[in-house]
Amino acid sequence: MYESYFAVIMAGGGGTRLWPVSRQERPKQMVRLFGERTLFQISVDRLEGMFPPERIFVVTVEEQARQLRKQAPEIPEQNFILEPSPKNTASVVGLAAVALQKRDPNAVMAVLTADHYIANIERFHQLLRAAFQVAGEGFLVTLGIKPNFPSTGYGYIHTGNEIGAYQGIRVHNARGFLEKPDEQRAKELFASDSYAWNSGMFVWKVDQIIVEMARQMPHLYTGLQMISRKWNTDERAETIRKVWEGLERISIDYGVMEGAENVAVIPVSDLGWSDVGSWESLFEVLPADEHGNIIHQAEFLGLDSQNSLVYGNNDGRLIVTLGVEDLVIVDAGDALLVCRKEHSQQVREVVQLLRKQGSRLA
Amino acid sequence: MYESYFAVIMAGGGGTRLWPVSRQERPKQMVRLFGERTLFQISVDRLEGMFPPERIFVVTVEEQARQLRKQAPEIPEQNFILEPSPKNTASVVGLAAVALQKRDPNAVMAVLTADHYIANIERFHQLLRAAFQVAGEGFLVTLGIKPNFPSTGYGYIHTGNEIGAYQGIRVHNARGFLEKPDEQRAKELFASDSYAWNSGMFVWKVDQIIVEMARQMPHLYTGLQMISRKWNTDERAETIRKVWEGLERISIDYGVMEGAENVAVIPVSDLGWSDVGSWESLFEVLPADEHGNIIHQAEFLGLDSQNSLVYGNNDGRLIVTLGVEDLVIVDAGDALLVCRKEHSQQVREVVQLLRKQGSRLA
Repeated sequence: MYESYFAVIMAGGGGTRLWPVSRQERPKQMVRLFGERTLFQISVDRLEGMFPPERIFVVTVEEQARQLRKQAPEIPEQNFILEPSPKNTASVVGLAAVALQKRDPNAVMAVLTADHYIANIERFHQLLRAAFQVAGEGFLVTLGIKPNFPSTGYGYIHTGNEIGAYQGIRVHNARGFLEKPDEQRAKELFASDSYAWNSGMFVWKVDQIIVEMARQMPHLYTGLQMISRKWNTDERAETIRKVWEGLERISIDYGVMEGAENVAVIPVSDLGWSDVGSWESLFEVLPADEHGNIIHQAEFLGLDSQNSLVYGNNDGRLIVTLGVEDLVIVDAGDALLVCRKEHSQQVREVVQLLRKQGSRLA
Repeated sequence: MYESYFAVIMAGGGGTRLWPVSRQERPKQMVRLFGERTLFQISVDRLEGMFPPERIFVVTVEEQARQLRKQAPEIPEQNFILEPSPKNTASVVGLAAVALQKRDPNAVMAVLTADHYIANIERFHQLLRAAFQVAGEGFLVTLGIKPNFPSTGYGYIHTGNEIGAYQGIRVHNARGFLEKPDEQRAKELFASDSYAWNSGMFVWKVDQIIVEMARQMPHLYTGLQMISRKWNTDERAETIRKVWEGLERISIDYGVMEGAENVAVIPVSDLGWSDVGSWESLFEVLPADEHGNIIHQAEFLGLDSQNSLVYGNNDGRLIVTLGVEDLVIVDAGDALLVCRKEHSQQVREVVQLLRKQGSRLA
């Protein structure tokens, strides 16, 4: 049974909200955010003991494939599946499903992210094992995170009745998916105890997700069938390219999950998970000193300074703060960001402006 | 008469509050704060049309003399007077007085600063002319600045009765000198209309200031007499060195002005003067954009940012701010300061800490 469990890492994203450290040519999963290893490498490392490298697949875009292969040489080259262009997650899942179906008709796949952070790896493995069991019983399983604060940065899943438990991990029906809420709504969701953050990680049988696509996304399904027929021929790449041209950009949440039946959610509270979706989110992930300051890769001297992030690039420059709080300072060498913590999400607007200006720093 | 008017620029100071741009080996007067010319050069330029270079004297310390000479080659070399070590302004004035007395027994001297800013140079010249006239009548004249906000960063002069006017410039008795006040006291002084900021600039007859020193600072006076006797011998430098060892560090305000009679003050309101004594003071001096931001020597992109100073070093680095206000960002290349505007004075503590640590950046 276990040998039909596969991991699929979606590694094609851009990610603009960690600018100036992430860039167009150095997307978030390629960033060494915490030191030596990139977020992609950390995402692969995290699977050790759960999946052998032969059962780890990576879906990415051509521009990133070479570097990702170099970063994870233990993963067989043919396990890197290339999208001609990024079309959001529904097509990624579809393409991976086709690849896995060719490899093992009984495949059960965990759809995982390349640029998130998980502190508690043991717990992550327990959660995956439970999810594979539930998926084996015919559920589309989403991994939820019990909120520990009223985040406006995450989507939410409405959890329904408990439908079972696996080694103490409770499984619920999923009632629906919610977009990122505003502040007021986030507080309500946080208070109600019936909502989990949507981690963007899923587990399901490959044949079952393909059936759902046939039902809900017939255009994508038809394309995938064309690709499947040419999979073991030298027309595979050409066929993918043609199919991809006509695809709509849509997420798996919208395209499939919202309209699917038999959706289960497993909400866990102690995973130490973060999507590292903004500089502010680093406060969930990196340890702070006694003043609440997070100092990373920087020579730092702070007077009357608190609850601030100082993120350097190990270049020996001294960064001094005086009387600041709730501030984010990111020094990427050629660009410096100074940002109020609660404005972290707006970094995306900075990148859009820079791209519009044709800046080499975007 | 005019040929007995001399300018003495005091250029020996250190100045730690413009760190990281000013340093131990690049004191404030050596800083190109506004572009091409250093504050010292700007202080010399300001005298053009008022004093020919032969009547401009500079008192400085040995470490700085070579650079200052290079920066003002038009001033004759022998007009640079060297202190063996800085002993505050009373001894500077005393030494300059001796030098001027040798040059011209009728000398009247304007004691000027090397590291302040004056926007309205024409007004400055009018003020000096009036001050020379008043000094010629036997007054020790201090140049006062009518406050335009309740500053806690300046000392104050209590102005008394009007004793005359020269071309519309009113002259008052000075009743007393006040230290930098706290916020409450500064508001009272600002409201009362009888107080002027102490600019640290003075005008007086050389023989008169020497008589005051003989009366109030006999130890300094005795030393100055020894130096005077050796002035035109090859023992001059050696004598200055010996005298300087025993001198007390004391300002001319404390040492002479507070106890002097016949002190006059000329308070002016439209000089555009600033002592440039902190990063915050640059808001009095440099023009701000429509958001109240001052951007100097920096590639800058600001979103929702206001009333902030971004001071770069023309190195092409992009500085982006997001959601900040009342912030000071100074990028000196090897060191970066991010400081709440109202904490500007505390920069001095940063420098003290760095010196204690033996940092090469102090």
